[in-house]
Amino acid sequence: MTERIYLDWNATSPLRPEARAAMIAALDEVGNPSSVHREGRTARHLVEQARERVAALVRAEPRNVVFTSGGTEANMMALTPALETSGTRFDRLMVSSVEHASVRAGGGFPTHQVEAIPVTADGVVDIGALERRLNELQRQGLRPPLVSIMAANNETGVIQPIKAAAAIVHAAGGLLHVDAVQAVGRIPFDINESDADLMTVSAHKLGGPQGVGALIRRSAALHFAEPLLRGGGQERGARAGTENVAGIAGFGAAAACAMATMTADGERMRAMRDRLEAGLANGPTVVFGQNAERLPNTSLFAAHGLRAETALINLDLGGFAVSSGSACSSGKVTASHVLAAMGVPDKLSSGAIRLSIGPSTGESEINLFLEAWMKLLAGLSKRKRGLAA
Amino acid sequence: MTERIYLDWNATSPLRPEARAAMIAALDEVGNPSSVHREGRTARHLVEQARERVAALVRAEPRNVVFTSGGTEANMMALTPALETSGTRFDRLMVSSVEHASVRAGGGFPTHQVEAIPVTADGVVDIGALERRLNELQRQGLRPPLVSIMAANNETGVIQPIKAAAAIVHAAGGLLHVDAVQAVGRIPFDINESDADLMTVSAHKLGGPQGVGALIRRSAALHFAEPLLRGGGQERGARAGTENVAGIAGFGAAAACAMATMTADGERMRAMRDRLEAGLANGPTVVFGQNAERLPNTSLFAAHGLRAETALINLDLGGFAVSSGSACSSGKVTASHVLAAMGVPDKLSSGAIRLSIGPSTGESEINLFLEAWMKLLAGLSKRKRGLAA
Repeated sequence: MTERIYLDWNATSPLRPEARAAMIAALDEVGNPSSVHREGRTARHLVEQARERVAALVRAEPRNVVFTSGGTEANMMALTPALETSGTRFDRLMVSSVEHASVRAGGGFPTHQVEAIPVTADGVVDIGALERRLNELQRQGLRPPLVSIMAANNETGVIQPIKAAAAIVHAAGGLLHVDAVQAVGRIPFDINESDADLMTVSAHKLGGPQGVGALIRRSAALHFAEPLLRGGGQERGARAGTENVAGIAGFGAAAACAMATMTADGERMRAMRDRLEAGLANGPTVVFGQNAERLPNTSLFAAHGLRAETALINLDLGGFAVSSGSACSSGKVTASHVLAAMGVPDKLSSGAIRLSIGPSTGESEINLFLEAWMKLLAGLSKRKRGLAA
Repeated sequence: MTERIYLDWNATSPLRPEARAAMIAALDEVGNPSSVHREGRTARHLVEQARERVAALVRAEPRNVVFTSGGTEANMMALTPALETSGTRFDRLMVSSVEHASVRAGGGFPTHQVEAIPVTADGVVDIGALERRLNELQRQGLRPPLVSIMAANNETGVIQPIKAAAAIVHAAGGLLHVDAVQAVGRIPFDINESDADLMTVSAHKLGGPQGVGALIRRSAALHFAEPLLRGGGQERGARAGTENVAGIAGFGAAAACAMATMTADGERMRAMRDRLEAGLANGPTVVFGQNAERLPNTSLFAAHGLRAETALINLDLGGFAVSSGSACSSGKVTASHVLAAMGVPDKLSSGAIRLSIGPSTGESEINLFLEAWMKLLAGLSKRKRGLAA
């Protein structure tokens, strides 16, 4: 059996040892955080300690962190017409055209109330287009929208201009939700500095367990009028249901680790990623979003004539776990909506391979991947020459 | 520090060793079940194996099991007007007056479309009242409702007549959802024999982890038209979001254990519970729902003049974790809606203590509890005599 090289950290990241230890310690306690006895108070303490750690990572107030079952639930909870500060209901949701499926699904908004914000060829949200559209709504006397823009794209790693978007959205009287699932824990993200009203975080993208996430408010003034899960007083009424204590404890431990090591890890990952892309440049490979600011750990690329399925199967057999784009759906390989929004033709985007690394990725793994990729391309051009002969 | 005696299994149960082992094994794998590479397929296998085990416990088909973040999410998902077999929307939800808060919250139904079904003084759903109400709706030409009745009550342990309810609901053209969170894993529950259309199960009530549950259909013909969590193809489109792989693996392992040991455990627990209640009968203690069929592990009782808060604090200091009723909310002690529905006066119900045991509860724990309870009552009557003097 080949030794495996895991280069798919944007799909899910290995559990950090500190998160594993925190989870096992929590699993060995028994107690419902809502119970008043000692066991209950111990469980409650684990949840509140994790809340402080997750809050610290994005410089939010702990009371503004609502734990959920993951990024999807947090996104669904955020994107509701009943998300109010002033008591009015939203009747329009604007989302960038490169958002995750759980944001593009529109949450509680009917389809006809959801509209897309375009991106540039580099995959950056077109801030000018957003501003023009918001001005148009104002001129027509229509209500300001709820806007959702991701902090960093899961496929390309492109970082979005959140602060600029927030200024424009707020000037128009709207609210901004930021799906920061791929950014938090990899690059610094301060909810106050970003000026986002709400943000989504996922544990398993930053070394915590699957099945835990959080929706975080910048201000306690923002009220969750119609929570997604109701019927219990947990999470100050914002999210009913017995807390996933062990998962939350693991999330907290992973957040604390990420906070401590993010800067150093980011520099090392960026150097490896850049070396990878320098290597790719030796062949007929196109890297997407390369001119934009990107996460330090992500590279999305394609070679003309090499289909993603073929590459994935070959690489998997060779010991490499990589992705053909977003892995958050049913495992089927379809043309990337992200690359389509960037204007990349289907023929090229159908070959897109995403490589995403993490703190424990080693230099040698990048070297071995580059070797395997070049071999794949060599085989491809040999077959092409064979066909031509 | 006193050795602790945990008698609050209905709030949350200790993790079974087999579930713990399955979770740790899953945590040590890395992989998103939606990824096509080997790591993804390994994660997928863990999820599907657990699905088979959970399905087997209630004799459902694996494809009809949808994993959720717990009982509350499963209940919210089930209680939707868009739960259709025929394409029509429900405009009425009927729930028993002793349901869990997440059912009483009414899911996706507006408050005015939710109505309560009464219970008898023993805490059993009044099947006659349900039938009369359904006949009345038919006579008025109104649409049949969605009905939700729990399999067993969390506070009293009273087992509800699900099969009889299903016959009546189906005769009227409605659908029946059963919150079986407290029953499954403690008493046999066969979804086909019960004739329930949908049922909710929670992992942490049967020795699995917190933060995992399932909504289970009897038939694949029942279609989830408007899932609560959307935007990904997971769970055949019924529930988007990366699966909580470790939690689900733990759920599966706990379900398999429960299936193997349920009958023997039930007999032993029932004998201990009956011995407890025989002991309680030596003092001025009232046991609620004692004339009804009950779970083998649950006893809810009160002594005139002893407030639950006082008892809980005393018992907690003495090393006992018990509950004053449902622990699924914000930890505050309020009069039980279950006892109110049974016609128990507030003065008595405000003293209700719930003792719930599990497979690893020992005889000596029951003896020690009885001693502590009698001491509490003795202190109480001494204080009363002091006041009278």
